Amino acid sequence: MKIYDVEGFPNPARVRIALAEKGVQDKVEFIPVDVMGGEHRTEAFRQKNPDAVVPCLELEDGSHISQCNAITEYIDGTYSDGPTLTGETPKERAHISMMNLRAENGLLNAVSNYFHHATEGLGPDLEVYQNEDWGLKQKEVATKTMAYLDEVLGENAYVAGDTFSMADITVFAGLAFADFAKIDIPANLTNLTAWREKVSSRPSIAA
Amino acid sequence: MKIYDVEGFPNPARVRIALAEKGVQDKVEFIPVDVMGGEHRTEAFRQKNPDAVVPCLELEDGSHISQCNAITEYIDGTYSDGPTLTGETPKERAHISMMNLRAENGLLNAVSNYFHHATEGLGPDLEVYQNEDWGLKQKEVATKTMAYLDEVLGENAYVAGDTFSMADITVFAGLAFADFAKIDIPANLTNLTAWREKVSSRPSIAA
Repeated sequence: MKIYDVEGFPNPARVRIALAEKGVQDKVEFIPVDVMGGEHRTEAFRQKNPDAVVPCLELEDGSHISQCNAITEYIDGTYSDGPTLTGETPKERAHISMMNLRAENGLLNAVSNYFHHATEGLGPDLEVYQNEDWGLKQKEVATKTMAYLDEVLGENAYVAGDTFSMADITVFAGLAFADFAKIDIPANLTNLTAWREKVSSRPSIAA
Repeated sequence: MKIYDVEGFPNPARVRIALAEKGVQDKVEFIPVDVMGGEHRTEAFRQKNPDAVVPCLELEDGSHISQCNAITEYIDGTYSDGPTLTGETPKERAHISMMNLRAENGLLNAVSNYFHHATEGLGPDLEVYQNEDWGLKQKEVATKTMAYLDEVLGENAYVAGDTFSMADITVFAGLAFADFAKIDIPANLTNLTAWREKVSSRPSIAA
């Protein structure tokens, strides 16, 4: 497998953590994409991923999978080692999927929209459409989602229940992006910060 | 199972089509939610679904699953009758998941954002934050996604390959919402309109 990505970017980090949880990083060749130079928007890259974003997985047969959730499902379904990241039973799978989508839409994508619309983002060459009011609204969404996750983590050890899952990875990446975009975790959200400290020590994340 | 929803709304339609494909509509009690009266935003409803949207699935144990993708995964994983809507192998599952997310983000949610932000939407009582410029931008996204799907459907019989899947349901619901929001399918997208006519005759949709 090949993964086209940028090391350290929030969505690529999700897939790299998933690979580390499964212990299969060595099965992947990482190909750096020059996002700051606009490579992800070239016709050559769009042939691989019409979404024009990283990461993008290339399988041995030359086909491509984009969208972090889909890539993570592929990795989790293909490699049986390590913990399940997407659940075993239909109920577990649906619960993890739901919590993951809440974290993605309400936190990671909301932070991303704030960053790209209400700050300088990646700079004027790449930020060709900005809507500051929308970006600021999405910052509110991100902060509300943090409060919701704090409630959830007051009742459960992890975002989707008793065990670590894809949903935790998405929240972790969302909070890392929030740091980068200078959106603080409100100080009263002690469950969320305690959870963050706990998952930060996992080998897949600490390494 | 119970499903809290509004008959005829785009996202509820996705789940109802999935149930009909699996032939298990009779296993569900549908509970109407007074969305026009704001019931989905009450504290009582938020206890079921913090996302404050329909549909929301209630399982026999009293737990809830929201997010159409998660609900569809639950239905597909629980009932083995009918076609698989989410795929069998990891590669199929990932491909369907990817195409479904492209259809959701690029078409259905884009149309929804146009409707809620750049038209009267559900009226002034419910549309408490509108950003017209964002809504108009999302209309462009929807139209571009239609063009992308037309290309895909020039090469494949269905949105995610040779067989009908969850991704087709999402596109179908997205186009129905586009009709409602008065976003036309460009006349040159003949693959998309031919596909739409074909899937319209499926019993799950025609009924």
